[in-house]
Amino acid sequence: MIIVLKPGCTDSQREEFIKDLEETYGVSVNTWVGAQSTVLGLIGDTAAIDIDNIGANEIVDSVKRVQEPYKLANRKFHPDDTVIHLPGGLSIGGKQLALIAGPCSVESKPQITEIARRVKQGGAQFLRGGAYKPRTSPYAFQGLKEDGLELLQEAKAETGLPIVTELMSVRQIDLFLKAGVDIIQVGARNMQNFDLLRELGHLQTPILLKRGLSATIEELLMAAEYILAGGNQNVILCERGIRTYETYTRNTLDISAVPILKRLTHLPVVVDPSHAGGISWLVEPLAMAAVAAGADGLIIEVHNNPKKALSDGAQSLTPDQFDHVAARIKKAAPLFGRTL
Amino acid sequence: MIIVLKPGCTDSQREEFIKDLEETYGVSVNTWVGAQSTVLGLIGDTAAIDIDNIGANEIVDSVKRVQEPYKLANRKFHPDDTVIHLPGGLSIGGKQLALIAGPCSVESKPQITEIARRVKQGGAQFLRGGAYKPRTSPYAFQGLKEDGLELLQEAKAETGLPIVTELMSVRQIDLFLKAGVDIIQVGARNMQNFDLLRELGHLQTPILLKRGLSATIEELLMAAEYILAGGNQNVILCERGIRTYETYTRNTLDISAVPILKRLTHLPVVVDPSHAGGISWLVEPLAMAAVAAGADGLIIEVHNNPKKALSDGAQSLTPDQFDHVAARIKKAAPLFGRTL
Amino acid sequence: MIIVLKPGCTDSQREEFIKDLEETYGVSVNTWVGAQSTVLGLIGDTAAIDIDNIGANEIVDSVKRVQEPYKLANRKFHPDDTVIHLPGGLSIGGKQLALIAGPCSVESKPQITEIARRVKQGGAQFLRGGAYKPRTSPYAFQGLKEDGLELLQEAKAETGLPIVTELMSVRQIDLFLKAGVDIIQVGARNMQNFDLLRELGHLQTPILLKRGLSATIEELLMAAEYILAGGNQNVILCERGIRTYETYTRNTLDISAVPILKRLTHLPVVVDPSHAGGISWLVEPLAMAAVAAGADGLIIEVHNNPKKALSDGAQSLTPDQFDHVAARIKKAAPLFGRTL
Amino acid sequence: MIIVLKPGCTDSQREEFIKDLEETYGVSVNTWVGAQSTVLGLIGDTAAIDIDNIGANEIVDSVKRVQEPYKLANRKFHPDDTVIHLPGGLSIGGKQLALIAGPCSVESKPQITEIARRVKQGGAQFLRGGAYKPRTSPYAFQGLKEDGLELLQEAKAETGLPIVTELMSVRQIDLFLKAGVDIIQVGARNMQNFDLLRELGHLQTPILLKRGLSATIEELLMAAEYILAGGNQNVILCERGIRTYETYTRNTLDISAVPILKRLTHLPVVVDPSHAGGISWLVEPLAMAAVAAGADGLIIEVHNNPKKALSDGAQSLTPDQFDHVAARIKKAAPLFGRTL
Repeated sequence: MIIVLKPGCTDSQREEFIKDLEETYGVSVNTWVGAQSTVLGLIGDTAAIDIDNIGANEIVDSVKRVQEPYKLANRKFHPDDTVIHLPGGLSIGGKQLALIAGPCSVESKPQITEIARRVKQGGAQFLRGGAYKPRTSPYAFQGLKEDGLELLQEAKAETGLPIVTELMSVRQIDLFLKAGVDIIQVGARNMQNFDLLRELGHLQTPILLKRGLSATIEELLMAAEYILAGGNQNVILCERGIRTYETYTRNTLDISAVPILKRLTHLPVVVDPSHAGGISWLVEPLAMAAVAAGADGLIIEVHNNPKKALSDGAQSLTPDQFDHVAARIKKAAPLFGRTL
Repeated sequence: MIIVLKPGCTDSQREEFIKDLEETYGVSVNTWVGAQSTVLGLIGDTAAIDIDNIGANEIVDSVKRVQEPYKLANRKFHPDDTVIHLPGGLSIGGKQLALIAGPCSVESKPQITEIARRVKQGGAQFLRGGAYKPRTSPYAFQGLKEDGLELLQEAKAETGLPIVTELMSVRQIDLFLKAGVDIIQVGARNMQNFDLLRELGHLQTPILLKRGLSATIEELLMAAEYILAGGNQNVILCERGIRTYETYTRNTLDISAVPILKRLTHLPVVVDPSHAGGISWLVEPLAMAAVAAGADGLIIEVHNNPKKALSDGAQSLTPDQFDHVAARIKKAAPLFGRTL
Repeated sequence: MIIVLKPGCTDSQREEFIKDLEETYGVSVNTWVGAQSTVLGLIGDTAAIDIDNIGANEIVDSVKRVQEPYKLANRKFHPDDTVIHLPGGLSIGGKQLALIAGPCSVESKPQITEIARRVKQGGAQFLRGGAYKPRTSPYAFQGLKEDGLELLQEAKAETGLPIVTELMSVRQIDLFLKAGVDIIQVGARNMQNFDLLRELGHLQTPILLKRGLSATIEELLMAAEYILAGGNQNVILCERGIRTYETYTRNTLDISAVPILKRLTHLPVVVDPSHAGGISWLVEPLAMAAVAAGADGLIIEVHNNPKKALSDGAQSLTPDQFDHVAARIKKAAPLFGRTL
Repeated sequence: MIIVLKPGCTDSQREEFIKDLEETYGVSVNTWVGAQSTVLGLIGDTAAIDIDNIGANEIVDSVKRVQEPYKLANRKFHPDDTVIHLPGGLSIGGKQLALIAGPCSVESKPQITEIARRVKQGGAQFLRGGAYKPRTSPYAFQGLKEDGLELLQEAKAETGLPIVTELMSVRQIDLFLKAGVDIIQVGARNMQNFDLLRELGHLQTPILLKRGLSATIEELLMAAEYILAGGNQNVILCERGIRTYETYTRNTLDISAVPILKRLTHLPVVVDPSHAGGISWLVEPLAMAAVAAGADGLIIEVHNNPKKALSDGAQSLTPDQFDHVAARIKKAAPLFGRTL
């Protein structure tokens, strides 16, 4: 951490400040007194230091973090890719692209089993489907809840596809474990629900952590750090579009986040082209772009009857459309060093 | 709700679609067939209809909501201001401006009692202070937790100031009730933690609901609607700055949100100039602007030693600075139809 | 255009308003009186109607445009792709991917000719290079101006590569025509310099129109419409990243804009992965993503000595790095129905 | 300027880099070799150094500007407020609040003279009105142009109010000088039209420089610096709302920009509450907030018949509404150390 002091700062103010830093944070401080400004360099573990608090001191002109505030998620300290192993010899983060598909919400047994069968046939290795749904309106369909989890288990029993489904509250953790959920999704709105992240850190179940609506890349990594710090090393990051001023799409897919995350962290990175655009005809080009940019996988909404879906119909593919997209991805994958 | 159909849509497609709408949502549908486009008008309760699902139908060109999706929070149906009554004859939402002040985090008994004493003296009617702190980093100070709640109770016992403090998880609700927290704060990062909102809806304790980092005004009102729909009518909205591209300030105070919220809803609206700007010298002008724009109150961070604060020091006022701001607010209040 | 009237509006207010609409805008108006609201449908040419002015009427609840406000740029009226033909049998907008490469600024004769030679060898068909540079600071290098144009002509003479260079003011138009600039670039900061667009509409030289820093897709199309309306049909759109809250990258590449623009308009769409990210190691993944998303071409910054470049060094590739990217694009192109 | 070098950097790389810096930019460099990182401090005039170019060097980890890149606009070097003197003993930037009012567009002689008369009566000291109008659509009303300038002169002759009107192109400068425009407005879309700024720098006419749609505060100051560097010291900055994700308002008024600009620069700062919100009933609370936050003036749209205005009707006040707002401002001004 580099601290630039204000020109007017006296020697005794500086000395007192340095003593403070050393005592409060257990760091050692190098001082460089220049002609115009004085610069302090903090050596030691600065991850826990609140940069704003340093800045609150009246002799401080500005503060700059040199080291990233995340450690366990940092590729610098873990150069090799994390590969998350799942039932049935599947994995996320390795050479094989992960293809996760299914409806926004689980709606009925015929719906989920039919979709599961179809996406498996199309090439998906994982089934997604929401049992608990975060909805902007309290009056909108909130998911089948426990019944939804049961229907997912049945679809898994029939197709063998591991399940990815969203958990909304610490109160649902036991239920999810009992239902044998293979990958627990943390939605964008809960990305900084720190109590939830902390409890998920005590599990071993892989966590699919979606980037918050307006989270920075660093904040996403810090949210992952909460889970990793608890002991759960199985974190999959998901870019799903960020909020911008553009209104044509629901969100703006931050495609740059894929190569950036791959560089900053060893964790797998998947992309959700369905939520990013919010429009079904955008799923295909965005999915292709994600693969080209280096994503480890895709999570795609598929519904057997999008126009009657209970949620997110506008962005769902039909199974036939999914077949088409999956076939294109399969063909493109080798060009980007992947298999499907 | 107004639905514009695509030009090519056939009569039978239209008829089938209308039948669907009537059966699925229990609305009645008026049809207007124009020379170029056909427009449908839905009559009945459309609040639960997902606008995106309607748009997923291939014959639909666009959809427009005519009625707001929030009902209980809507001023149209509740023209009079909601005034929330608190112990000691205090209220929020009426003629009296509410002044909530205190440190970001409760750090120690001397710290919180000293600050409580000083802000009361300066004119604050409520004491804020975090016992549970949402922090971006898992390695940063996370608050004194239960001990913090206890220290707040002691500060309240000494000064008589009702307590405002943030709750981060459903698991803390009982603790907060037992500790006699007067106003439970829901932080920006939890604004769409719907399970939490739903549980808070079953309490009678007033809820200070902060606007999410990039929540729209409508989303803030829908989050309030979750609490109201559960039966808790005591919701106070808080504008605390939104995330934009501007980096000079931590967030951008959306001052327009104040008069807009006052028009759209009957709920009280307070402003947090400390988090909005993130800089102590900005607190005063932003506080004055908030009062001028019609806010019902302010929530201001005050610390007896900002440069040694364990969190958010950069934006905290000293007690002397707070005295100065409070005095200016007191003087300005009558001009804007308020008292302090 | 659909206008929803407020519930309280009287019959005579409505009649007067309709008469006004018909007289002012020469449209005919269909009225649909529903149980709760009254809806008006405007028939005729509504492109010139200012939606905000309609909304200013106190009996109007809301207004919605059904037709896009752009006509000449609209694919609905020009279903076939526009292919722009350039010297040497080159074209932009057809099956062949356009690869435009070169330095941010023209700096010297050896610099520009060396880079031109190298990018041509790597596969570029066009040479970019700035003679007039829009710089945030008046104290920064502003380009070699006329001398830069001359050096570009010399590089073109030596390599045969057509030139793409930015024009900043109407005062430079004659100079650019005299210098035989093949494609005139309008920079992001001038996207809504309407007087400039209007004058460029009177030329036949192709215009590469960059999306403004925070322009919506519709605003970009409306800017193109200014040029098209003047008679110049040779407009190439360029997505170069938009401004968001994320600070890791200089801008956020809006990859969705590529397929959306290809759907809404017949004009060619190229992507600038150098400015979008602002980081040289991001150029390759973003370039691949752009091709995968359907872009008609790429514009890439290449410098023979990026660390000594007079501008934008941080995002420039070396010629060797460019060779590598170009080879990958060449290999990937057929998968996306293109050749290079 | 502080440069942090990467840990792996060798002594000879560092020496070569330092030599480069000294030769290229004429600065002297202090080196501080720490245990973990090496920090360079540049001394001298670093305003012209492109921070991105420094970052392009492979041994550089990060770069930080310590000094602001603007000099003439910087309050550090010009501590006293700039007060701009105008005909009739008027001034902007001093104790007296500047009240600029008038229609978005000049439409006819009766319109502009009637509005001029009314706003003067209400308390305005300046008349605004657009003769040249930047419009998103080439098909929308583009202003009366030269005739508009003439009508403004007539309105000035009748009322004595100095004129503020927008210039869109360098080609209009002579015309504006001839027409005796008192304050030349540069619109948000032209804030970074650097050639225009440079030419305006050669005039003495005061320039009202509007903040760009998504310009940072620093970019606004750098745009002002272009004008100041040319020799024209009469620059008035105008906050008019920035582009964010919120759709309820046209733009988001960045009220914090007012006190921040007042701290960073000596130039006067006015606020445009009409464009910021885009809604007439928001003008009053935003105007009051602007005064409370320390603005030096306001620019407000007033139209005698907003619903028939040729542009921006939705945000215009009627003269009666303006009277009401002006009266409230007059009453509030002394509280904020101003007069009206």
